[in-house]
Amino acid sequence: MGSSVGWLARRLAAVLQQHLEPAGVRLELWDGASTYAGPRPIGTLVVADLRTLLGILVNPHLQFGECYMHGTLQVRGGLEPVLEAITRLALIPSWRERISSYFATGNSVQRARRNVHHHYDLGNDFYSSWLDERLVYTCAYFERPDMSLEQAQIAKMDLVCRKLRLQPGESVVEAGCGWGALALHMARQYGVNVRAVNVSYEQTAYARAWAAREGLTGQVEFIEDDYRNLAGEYDVFVSVGMLEHVGLTHYPSLAGVMRRTLRRPNGRGLLHFIGRDIPRPLNAWIRRRIFPGGYAPTLAQVATRVLEPARMSILDVENLRLHYARTLAHWSRRFAAASDQVRGRYGEEFRRAWELYLVGSEATFAAGALQLFQVVFAPCESTPPYRTRAEVYGGAQDDAWLAGTR
Amino acid sequence: MGSSVGWLARRLAAVLQQHLEPAGVRLELWDGASTYAGPRPIGTLVVADLRTLLGILVNPHLQFGECYMHGTLQVRGGLEPVLEAITRLALIPSWRERISSYFATGNSVQRARRNVHHHYDLGNDFYSSWLDERLVYTCAYFERPDMSLEQAQIAKMDLVCRKLRLQPGESVVEAGCGWGALALHMARQYGVNVRAVNVSYEQTAYARAWAAREGLTGQVEFIEDDYRNLAGEYDVFVSVGMLEHVGLTHYPSLAGVMRRTLRRPNGRGLLHFIGRDIPRPLNAWIRRRIFPGGYAPTLAQVATRVLEPARMSILDVENLRLHYARTLAHWSRRFAAASDQVRGRYGEEFRRAWELYLVGSEATFAAGALQLFQVVFAPCESTPPYRTRAEVYGGAQDDAWLAGTR
Repeated sequence: MGSSVGWLARRLAAVLQQHLEPAGVRLELWDGASTYAGPRPIGTLVVADLRTLLGILVNPHLQFGECYMHGTLQVRGGLEPVLEAITRLALIPSWRERISSYFATGNSVQRARRNVHHHYDLGNDFYSSWLDERLVYTCAYFERPDMSLEQAQIAKMDLVCRKLRLQPGESVVEAGCGWGALALHMARQYGVNVRAVNVSYEQTAYARAWAAREGLTGQVEFIEDDYRNLAGEYDVFVSVGMLEHVGLTHYPSLAGVMRRTLRRPNGRGLLHFIGRDIPRPLNAWIRRRIFPGGYAPTLAQVATRVLEPARMSILDVENLRLHYARTLAHWSRRFAAASDQVRGRYGEEFRRAWELYLVGSEATFAAGALQLFQVVFAPCESTPPYRTRAEVYGGAQDDAWLAGTR
Repeated sequence: MGSSVGWLARRLAAVLQQHLEPAGVRLELWDGASTYAGPRPIGTLVVADLRTLLGILVNPHLQFGECYMHGTLQVRGGLEPVLEAITRLALIPSWRERISSYFATGNSVQRARRNVHHHYDLGNDFYSSWLDERLVYTCAYFERPDMSLEQAQIAKMDLVCRKLRLQPGESVVEAGCGWGALALHMARQYGVNVRAVNVSYEQTAYARAWAAREGLTGQVEFIEDDYRNLAGEYDVFVSVGMLEHVGLTHYPSLAGVMRRTLRRPNGRGLLHFIGRDIPRPLNAWIRRRIFPGGYAPTLAQVATRVLEPARMSILDVENLRLHYARTLAHWSRRFAAASDQVRGRYGEEFRRAWELYLVGSEATFAAGALQLFQVVFAPCESTPPYRTRAEVYGGAQDDAWLAGTR
């Protein structure tokens, strides 16, 4: 079990154990010893050497992930409950985190392309081994609790369309379209014309081929480009899961795009993004290994830096964080089932990194340290697209309202 | 028709007319002359003298109201459409307004009491002549378009209760309870215990008598006090139509109250308030004559100055601005029907001031220059009170979700 455990290691472990004990997490050193004295623990962190112990003490946000990935940190008793309990220990960001979140880097056009390539161009095969059949890589909507992941992703796309009250023949621009599922859903089910942009070559190629197979090429145009280059005017602006990659310093450019592309006075839009209650950078390890340049903003940051400069009125906000926890639980289970395949192709470190990312994200949404906001907005001078939410959730539509009669 | 119209007055009127013409509003001087050259106007402003003309040119935000109140400015062709068209001319605040909104005065405990007395202690008779029978003086919810004001106010109170998912036996604290309708509705229909505070003597006395008549004294306690003095812990925090009177500089005290009074981990709350898309002070005349100390914040201001320091997670936001326009249309009609009575008791200037306030507010909500936000929140560590909105809008409740199972 590695080298012997010295006096210093025992003292350091005792300090760390004290910190973890309120979460019910036990710490075990490489000789099997532990100073845990709480009630039945929910799980155990097993540290393989002094270097791992030091790393976790000095820079926990980064080193927990690094050590887990390298295998020098093992977790017994269920990765998710352990991570969820640890996350709850620090739901409120420290002042250091709050300050550093204001210096979150932005992503230039080149850098955004590189960052997206890092994550999304791992190969469509990789993603299809654990996403749903339509490759929807954003929070699903479990409209009924017994829905499958496939059903919940369709329910999510449909919820987005209903919140936007899409009408046949309208034009929609989608910023960051992934593998194209939402664009095709909008075109197929709601009869709208969609222009969808994405900086990932692999995703765009996949989406184009899919549109061709469905005979929707005339209705949906997939463009490999940055959202900042969007031109034209549209009835609807939609962006699902892209804002996390934009970076705070580039919010004004996004605002400019929205302001110039959204038709008035009947335009409206929806932003769906991972957010925070209080400003805080994304976890350092996630930024290093999974999402370079990623940042999850607060609703207020999006309101003041995107929607106010774009002159948009906020009509509706829904927080779906528990739906994202459930979505991630589905992905984790499928990822675990595909683990031999992933290990064979990308190696064990990669597999452990992605396991930690998926399970850790589930834990973070479940604990309430990450939020998922869906924000519906419209230019300040526009009439809101519906009178009551009952129209979105199954009630009758009220067209007199739309005509502006009171 | 007053004094003769000189050369200067004609030049000034031409400048003002040029500004009003895009709104289709005609300007007429005291000799009947107008330089209006647009299509059929939607209405006419009739100016009685040079002083009125100068006032409106130099300080329109304040003097429009002053002159209308004094009767030296008359409006022909429908007050509401004219005001709505003028409001649309300046939907986006000027930089001067944006900057001055950051210096919006706060309201100390004494000043808050004085301000509230100014507005709310005009006499219950006055308000009962044009509000609904329950004296609900906040935005109604026209769940069905044909609802009466009475029905829509009940629907609003019920919507608030359903969004909060009130359970029998829970404790609720209400900050700013008006004449008590919501507190009594919550107690009667949902079986909760309510502690409701209000700094208005007349309103508190009325609410107490009403509770006694209904036999709800044991369940609802009405207290004449400032929200800042609230003590104890509650399951639910609710405040409908009070935030507008708090003032930006006192948001941290409100945050402190919410943070210390809301029970964890199952607490939740709702703020219902008049808001803005972009920071902007309330109209100067409204602040002078109707709501001293009033301020309508943006959602971002409430998020950063109230909800973040209170460590609350935003779960749901709904913008009901068109419902407020409709509510105000109801109030205006009833107020007009009671105008002889109001004039007899308070004089014609008072009647004109309140007419302008009610009709002008309708126009402002209709044009999109004011918003009505309902925000549901919960302490960061709490589980959201429902899984999908379908549960709020008539669907079945999903208790497994509440138990935390995913």
